[in-house]
Amino acid sequence: MLVSHIVIEATRGNAVESVHLVSAAVVDGSGRALATHGDVATPIYPRSAIKVMQALPLVESGAADRFGFGAKELALACASHSGESSHVGLAADILQRAGLGEADLECGCHWPFDQKVAIALAQSGETPTQLHNNCSGKHAGFLCTAVHLGEETRGYVAGDHPVQRRARQAIADLTNTAVGDATPSGIDGCSIPTYAAPLQAFALGFARLASGTALPDTRARAGQRLMAACMAEPFFMAGTDRACVALMEAAPGRVFAKTGAEGVFCGAVPELGFGFALKAHDGGTRAAESAVARLIADILRGADRAIAERYDELSRHSLRNWEGTKVGEVRPRQS
Amino acid sequence: MLVSHIVIEATRGNAVESVHLVSAAVVDGSGRALATHGDVATPIYPRSAIKVMQALPLVESGAADRFGFGAKELALACASHSGESSHVGLAADILQRAGLGEADLECGCHWPFDQKVAIALAQSGETPTQLHNNCSGKHAGFLCTAVHLGEETRGYVAGDHPVQRRARQAIADLTNTAVGDATPSGIDGCSIPTYAAPLQAFALGFARLASGTALPDTRARAGQRLMAACMAEPFFMAGTDRACVALMEAAPGRVFAKTGAEGVFCGAVPELGFGFALKAHDGGTRAAESAVARLIADILRGADRAIAERYDELSRHSLRNWEGTKVGEVRPRQS
Repeated sequence: MLVSHIVIEATRGNAVESVHLVSAAVVDGSGRALATHGDVATPIYPRSAIKVMQALPLVESGAADRFGFGAKELALACASHSGESSHVGLAADILQRAGLGEADLECGCHWPFDQKVAIALAQSGETPTQLHNNCSGKHAGFLCTAVHLGEETRGYVAGDHPVQRRARQAIADLTNTAVGDATPSGIDGCSIPTYAAPLQAFALGFARLASGTALPDTRARAGQRLMAACMAEPFFMAGTDRACVALMEAAPGRVFAKTGAEGVFCGAVPELGFGFALKAHDGGTRAAESAVARLIADILRGADRAIAERYDELSRHSLRNWEGTKVGEVRPRQS
Repeated sequence: MLVSHIVIEATRGNAVESVHLVSAAVVDGSGRALATHGDVATPIYPRSAIKVMQALPLVESGAADRFGFGAKELALACASHSGESSHVGLAADILQRAGLGEADLECGCHWPFDQKVAIALAQSGETPTQLHNNCSGKHAGFLCTAVHLGEETRGYVAGDHPVQRRARQAIADLTNTAVGDATPSGIDGCSIPTYAAPLQAFALGFARLASGTALPDTRARAGQRLMAACMAEPFFMAGTDRACVALMEAAPGRVFAKTGAEGVFCGAVPELGFGFALKAHDGGTRAAESAVARLIADILRGADRAIAERYDELSRHSLRNWEGTKVGEVRPRQS
């Protein structure tokens, strides 16, 4: 079958400088395709874009209630956060509630990705701990679940630990895909497994979470609670000037969107019961951010023209040089 | 005509996670194509990959000799440096020799791109000046030329200033391309104009500089002096852990290679009189770095198998997670 990718272009002056190809799927809870761009059938690694799925056992097991998770804590458990002080502080607080600390994390250390945040941390004289890892909230959630269920916490990042087996099972159930070691799989940046599946399968998973279609009550409630928390507290799922925050603040409570490394986005529009998933095939974040905004605009265009225009605006951003002069633009290619 | 791009792939676990398409041209001084991959005919922006061409008037005018430019200074004038203290110090020194200072630069300020360098600068309590701009050496060279020729220095970044007109003329002459405002053009990160031309034209320009083919003596000597300086002092053209340094240190004095933003590389193999130019079409630096190493390996494979293998090694690099575990690889796709 002939496929047509979304094209995101970066312009400079009067010419296109670089181009990105993006595939995307929008489906409803029954798996019906509302929109298909490019290749939605070849497995791709979702990376951090499915943290909501990985956090389902935290809520379903009762661990979130036991350790007092409100919206901020749940958003942080689904976060790729920027390592700002409020992210770091809340991750430490969550671990303390479970009788644990930074040393129990197995996600590794890195300086915050955002240069402003990293520079501010360096200027303060501090160096990053594992709490600054963008995945520390997710890992804190993993550890809380293990403690709640009386499991050994050490080694919780390994694929055969109960924490990871539950996460994998949740992904498999939601996406109707037998993800595992027999299918494409690898190790994520934070040392846990990542399992590949088609974009249409991830979109289905988010449509089911958004609509509750064919889900046990416990799972439907857990999914809706996690997405509602992220939409209510988007800063705790991302950070200052981050695309996920802009995407969720443009239509508060109506759009869930989560980025993943190497150009991935997953999300849902709960009022329509639609899920979506996309990947920029070169892994480019700027392309994924532009494409997801346009995809959401197109989903909402029939229902709410004004909101759709806000997302159209988010699909374009200016490129500026070091003097602040506009030199080009990143934008979806138009016919 | 059907074209075949170089494919650079990023793997994770047992699957390919992301892919990049790269076009590349290798030509000799007469314009004969030795290798062609993808689209070498559509104009692309060379960005910083042609700083040697932009620095030709500095040498040809006599300004470099007047202000005591040795190999380090010439390499810095062709550099996209990392803003390390020796780069910053030498740029300041060059400006002082011409009776100027940091305030005369018009390139703007930015924190060093390399996170380690930026963090070290922040930890030292300093903030970046225009001297830290990766282009400050090139701009210092522009200013020295203007001072030497008795020109007004203010506004030297504008396309109609003599400094920029000379640079544009050098590019046009070497590439046999009428670059200018009538062809695709834009503003570079450091505020000077950037003019697009086909990859095969840039490859021709570097082949002519490397071989001296059909060049006036003054230009042939200036080009060879600049490339020799970069090959002798690659650190001053780039910085710690930078690809340009690795590419030039792998075969000292035999390979010239210079990166440009948005996935560009230009360079030459002087002993063969070949020039090359490539672009990763999505602008991905990791793809350009892998592809250029493989391109150089292929150029040298007939002449020197051992050296070619060193470049083959440089064309692959491991991807590691925050715990240091190897999780994948960036590499040219093989049949």
